[in-house]
Amino acid sequence: MEFSFSYYIGLAGIMVFTISGAIAALEHKEHHHDVFSVFFTGFITAIGGGTLRDITLGNYPVSWVKDENILWAIFVGFLLVIFLPKVLTKLRNELLLFDTLGIGIYTVLGTRIALDHGVNAFASALLGMISAIFGGVIRDTLMNEVPFIFRKEIYATACLAGSVLYLILNEFACEPNLNLVLSASLVVSIRLIAVKYNLGLPKLKIF
Amino acid sequence: MEFSFSYYIGLAGIMVFTISGAIAALEHKEHHHDVFSVFFTGFITAIGGGTLRDITLGNYPVSWVKDENILWAIFVGFLLVIFLPKVLTKLRNELLLFDTLGIGIYTVLGTRIALDHGVNAFASALLGMISAIFGGVIRDTLMNEVPFIFRKEIYATACLAGSVLYLILNEFACEPNLNLVLSASLVVSIRLIAVKYNLGLPKLKIF
Amino acid sequence: MEFSFSYYIGLAGIMVFTISGAIAALEHKEHHHDVFSVFFTGFITAIGGGTLRDITLGNYPVSWVKDENILWAIFVGFLLVIFLPKVLTKLRNELLLFDTLGIGIYTVLGTRIALDHGVNAFASALLGMISAIFGGVIRDTLMNEVPFIFRKEIYATACLAGSVLYLILNEFACEPNLNLVLSASLVVSIRLIAVKYNLGLPKLKIF
Repeated sequence: MEFSFSYYIGLAGIMVFTISGAIAALEHKEHHHDVFSVFFTGFITAIGGGTLRDITLGNYPVSWVKDENILWAIFVGFLLVIFLPKVLTKLRNELLLFDTLGIGIYTVLGTRIALDHGVNAFASALLGMISAIFGGVIRDTLMNEVPFIFRKEIYATACLAGSVLYLILNEFACEPNLNLVLSASLVVSIRLIAVKYNLGLPKLKIF
Repeated sequence: MEFSFSYYIGLAGIMVFTISGAIAALEHKEHHHDVFSVFFTGFITAIGGGTLRDITLGNYPVSWVKDENILWAIFVGFLLVIFLPKVLTKLRNELLLFDTLGIGIYTVLGTRIALDHGVNAFASALLGMISAIFGGVIRDTLMNEVPFIFRKEIYATACLAGSVLYLILNEFACEPNLNLVLSASLVVSIRLIAVKYNLGLPKLKIF
Repeated sequence: MEFSFSYYIGLAGIMVFTISGAIAALEHKEHHHDVFSVFFTGFITAIGGGTLRDITLGNYPVSWVKDENILWAIFVGFLLVIFLPKVLTKLRNELLLFDTLGIGIYTVLGTRIALDHGVNAFASALLGMISAIFGGVIRDTLMNEVPFIFRKEIYATACLAGSVLYLILNEFACEPNLNLVLSASLVVSIRLIAVKYNLGLPKLKIF
């Protein structure tokens, strides 16, 4: 209820995750690039993080099993890749924005769901981040690549910052929708600044 | 109950999945090829898909945890690989047939179990397919290879077709055992035709 | 309760698993080696096996979600890697001993938890082993490498031997704490002897 406006943004996030997964499959050299591979990679990317969060929490039924709309959002994303690939390629920067919105929403929703299950703050922050990033981690692992979270500019850390902000504001009894907007905005801001200025976390060069 | 005759075919499928996983370990270059590696790869291949289905559904206890016979079927498959490797190598085509029977049965059983959990049709079809293919996906990922479902002739799509047929016939109140046979037969037929004529799905060459 | 003394050894095991995962990330060529990557790889290595055991058993809440101390143990392990990398590098052999203690404890605790869920002996032995080794398997898979259990000297098999001993002594009504010590000692002994004399299981060279 309190997240009903985020529900639609969440569906948009699912769709954009699907598109990013499907495009990853199409760009991959060892892949057969057939219709199924493209659909399946998009599907896994879209639902991986939320599914892992739900089965770790015992939050049954898992979101996409309960809510068919999630699957239809995936299907629409898949159709867009099939029928409008050139448009999507042109809109890459705009899609990146959607992906970033997606991880913002996912982080906060994941943190909220964990709190609602009575989970401690530390684990809730991690589960929020896992919701947002693990679809991409599974996608990359299936592509036989080192997951992008281990290579890219600040990504998972932005999620972690967002879930920590959510927890702090929640502690101060911040109104939930406002908290959602503020915390997701923090994720989005950190991520966009990191991409723009090519920022990474400090490296540890020990060995 | 209504699947009791499929129970034994399911156990045979488990055994054949084990054999295919164990052989994959033996053929892999980076593997140590010791007794444990071979057993463990067979085990993961055999139980991966059903386990993922069960934990996604919250269908506890998970099949192999509940039913020791599944583990004994795996053990028998493992012993066959150890003691009769040459026979198995000769029987490859026949084993392929068993594997195909296995995915047929798994697809339909997975779809049925999802429906029995009150899952919507779209998700049930996907869960049926996941039951059938994910053991192989995990096997290939552990082998550090791009999963075969992204490379091979029609495989996962045959499963998807079978679960869709099952759902349609189920909607028309088809007798369950008959539905099982018909839908699994569709999976098997599509797969065998695809292998025989080397058929793949249309490729998407966009980039 | 009956495992309260093992609780602290378990936390030490978590910390050492974290350290081994974090060091693996630091040594990996394709990794960015930033603070997050190092933390996250350590986290996954530490909680992977127990999480898989718990979600396979439906044992909710999952250990690290329930017990914040586990996360603090991970955090301490992470800080040690950040601030005392040279000490850890020097102490490698001692850390190996801790890792070995860790898998010993994990194996036995995993077997115990499975038994307490009414799981049959065969599956309990496998779940004990899975608890101990799967954090490392997931770590290696994310590193895009063939899991070490498929390459190293006897490792998983030592765990399997320990859980079988636990099951046998449990059958003979052995006092639980004594059983824990004896069975974990078996894991540790087999592993240390295997490392010292570079022992592997018999190879199967069929193809």
